[in-house]
Amino acid sequence: MELTNTSVLNALRHVDDPDIKKDLVTLNMIQDIEIEGNKLSFTVMLTTPACPLKEVIKNDCLKAIEEHIGSDVEVDILMSSHVTTTRDNTPLLPGVKNIIAVASGKGGVGKSTVTANLAVALARQGAKVGIIDADIFGPSMPTMFNCEHEQPGIRKEGEKNLIIPIEQYGIKLISIGFLTPAENAVVWRGPMASSALKQFIGDTEWGELDYLFIDLPPGTSDIHLTLVQTVPVTGVVLVTTPQKVALADAQKGLNMFMQQQINVPILGVVENMAYFTPEELPDNKYHIFGKDGGKKLAQKHDVPFLGEIPLVQGIREGGDIGYPAIMQEGPTSDAFMQVAEATAQRVAIRNAEKAETKKVELKV
Amino acid sequence: MELTNTSVLNALRHVDDPDIKKDLVTLNMIQDIEIEGNKLSFTVMLTTPACPLKEVIKNDCLKAIEEHIGSDVEVDILMSSHVTTTRDNTPLLPGVKNIIAVASGKGGVGKSTVTANLAVALARQGAKVGIIDADIFGPSMPTMFNCEHEQPGIRKEGEKNLIIPIEQYGIKLISIGFLTPAENAVVWRGPMASSALKQFIGDTEWGELDYLFIDLPPGTSDIHLTLVQTVPVTGVVLVTTPQKVALADAQKGLNMFMQQQINVPILGVVENMAYFTPEELPDNKYHIFGKDGGKKLAQKHDVPFLGEIPLVQGIREGGDIGYPAIMQEGPTSDAFMQVAEATAQRVAIRNAEKAETKKVELKV
Repeated sequence: MELTNTSVLNALRHVDDPDIKKDLVTLNMIQDIEIEGNKLSFTVMLTTPACPLKEVIKNDCLKAIEEHIGSDVEVDILMSSHVTTTRDNTPLLPGVKNIIAVASGKGGVGKSTVTANLAVALARQGAKVGIIDADIFGPSMPTMFNCEHEQPGIRKEGEKNLIIPIEQYGIKLISIGFLTPAENAVVWRGPMASSALKQFIGDTEWGELDYLFIDLPPGTSDIHLTLVQTVPVTGVVLVTTPQKVALADAQKGLNMFMQQQINVPILGVVENMAYFTPEELPDNKYHIFGKDGGKKLAQKHDVPFLGEIPLVQGIREGGDIGYPAIMQEGPTSDAFMQVAEATAQRVAIRNAEKAETKKVELKV
Repeated sequence: MELTNTSVLNALRHVDDPDIKKDLVTLNMIQDIEIEGNKLSFTVMLTTPACPLKEVIKNDCLKAIEEHIGSDVEVDILMSSHVTTTRDNTPLLPGVKNIIAVASGKGGVGKSTVTANLAVALARQGAKVGIIDADIFGPSMPTMFNCEHEQPGIRKEGEKNLIIPIEQYGIKLISIGFLTPAENAVVWRGPMASSALKQFIGDTEWGELDYLFIDLPPGTSDIHLTLVQTVPVTGVVLVTTPQKVALADAQKGLNMFMQQQINVPILGVVENMAYFTPEELPDNKYHIFGKDGGKKLAQKHDVPFLGEIPLVQGIREGGDIGYPAIMQEGPTSDAFMQVAEATAQRVAIRNAEKAETKKVELKV
């Protein structure tokens, strides 16, 4: 077969995106085809820089060219990415492609730890990532990102004062912790807390982001309602420990987002503190909080299981010392990277399959 | 010295309550003196059935009688108790002597576990105890007390419908979990949640209680404000793990209750999950979440440290299976008993030293 733009595209029609289950040409993922003699180069534009199937797709392309055009073609494939979105021209957060809420139901299951690590993992793969710390009463992001004493700048734009997020480890961050002294309690009823969240969404200069994570407080109350009523959320990552009391609350969280009036897609369930491993006895796994609870919850509700994170002293210490565990090599880091890839993958599938989430119109 | 009512009282004036630092006679703790020949019997009315100094006080009494009256007296001392209160004739919860709020700032630190175990520990010592599960969005008490499928009765009193609390393991319990299906999320804004708490306080038939525990949700918002605005709280038990992010939130919790407009006495700090001990390696203590954080927090704010609870698989399993760990012998049970005694002791000292907490008048 002659080497032409058309023959290349025809060959690549035989390669499917394994997640979205459509071929790369239909998905508009093949770009910049260049041909010089028997030399071919093109770009595969993935739906996320954290695509776990990068190598699979690359190999499938090589095989398709060999099979349908010939084995004497010298192929150079550049794997790039362009994060997909279903958000379109919205007045709030116009440059943000995906809004990912991280929820848990129960507090203390490691929601903020998971948020911080997913964000840094995706940024390290090349994505533009931000975090809104929506836990107004217990903000953890300033500690986790070692920027407790930073103060966000303000930029005047017309009548409006825009908050400029703090940048740390490549992540844009905003938290009530940057605006109030760390020791002080923010003793606010719901409407005050909700208006803080609205400011973080509407009056903050986010610019262009592939993923904006919202670290939600525990429970199913004002902040959660305000979020889904203010912006359409791409999807929810639900964090739980395997413990029965945590699972009960996680279930409530799932039910909130899945109920018909709210209807935000669930990207999946992360099981945190799946087991404890002492550093000197790496083969001992203690299922302190029970076993496989998160996996079973995901199965029960027919939502994806994104992975499990072990409890290793390093994670906790990482959070306390001020850098997410993903920044240090080891089993925890690997686990978080897998969960981050699975999350990005689920976002891509969700964007390919489903229409934009609707902003919720509820009278509460 | 002759054995008379007067000589006995004079002798016992030499015995101080080690906590309240006044003598037993002044404190009106000596009752029912009976004398027959050289036989003497009387009752020491302690301020709590869980008094950790019971034996010390008894021995001090024996010594005082011997020293000041003579060694030939046959003494029989009955140690009884009458829990003290500073609450007086209030329209809400008139029969409840002490209202103890259990708070944490951060969720998932074991607040509900501590509440359940303190309550059962005090009930086992003979106190009348109740629990209001004020965590409207993540009620854990029904699971912890294995009564998830119970439904409270209703009794009509005049115009009012009174909720009759569930009784389990000697504790009177009320929780939103008894009133809504376990899987459903209670998606309420603050005012709805607050009105549920008000019903649990004002429209529930609590009767006579020595201690009513209020298991608060994480954070410092609607439920906390509504509680201190609705009833005067005797004191707060603050639960934390040694983790920095948990301590930061615990500090916020402390600050909320200590701030001048609110001003609820802090009974003390409990450090939960102080360390992990595998059952087969009881000498290995893993400080998974850091070390002594709770102790240091208590020192910093000059409030009592009530004790530390280790993380043993049994505690978690106890909570999940439906009976508090205190009901099973072992190191965890011992730790909880000590914390319960310290809490009761702090309530007695608080009642002896301080006036009634005022209901908070805040316009929020």
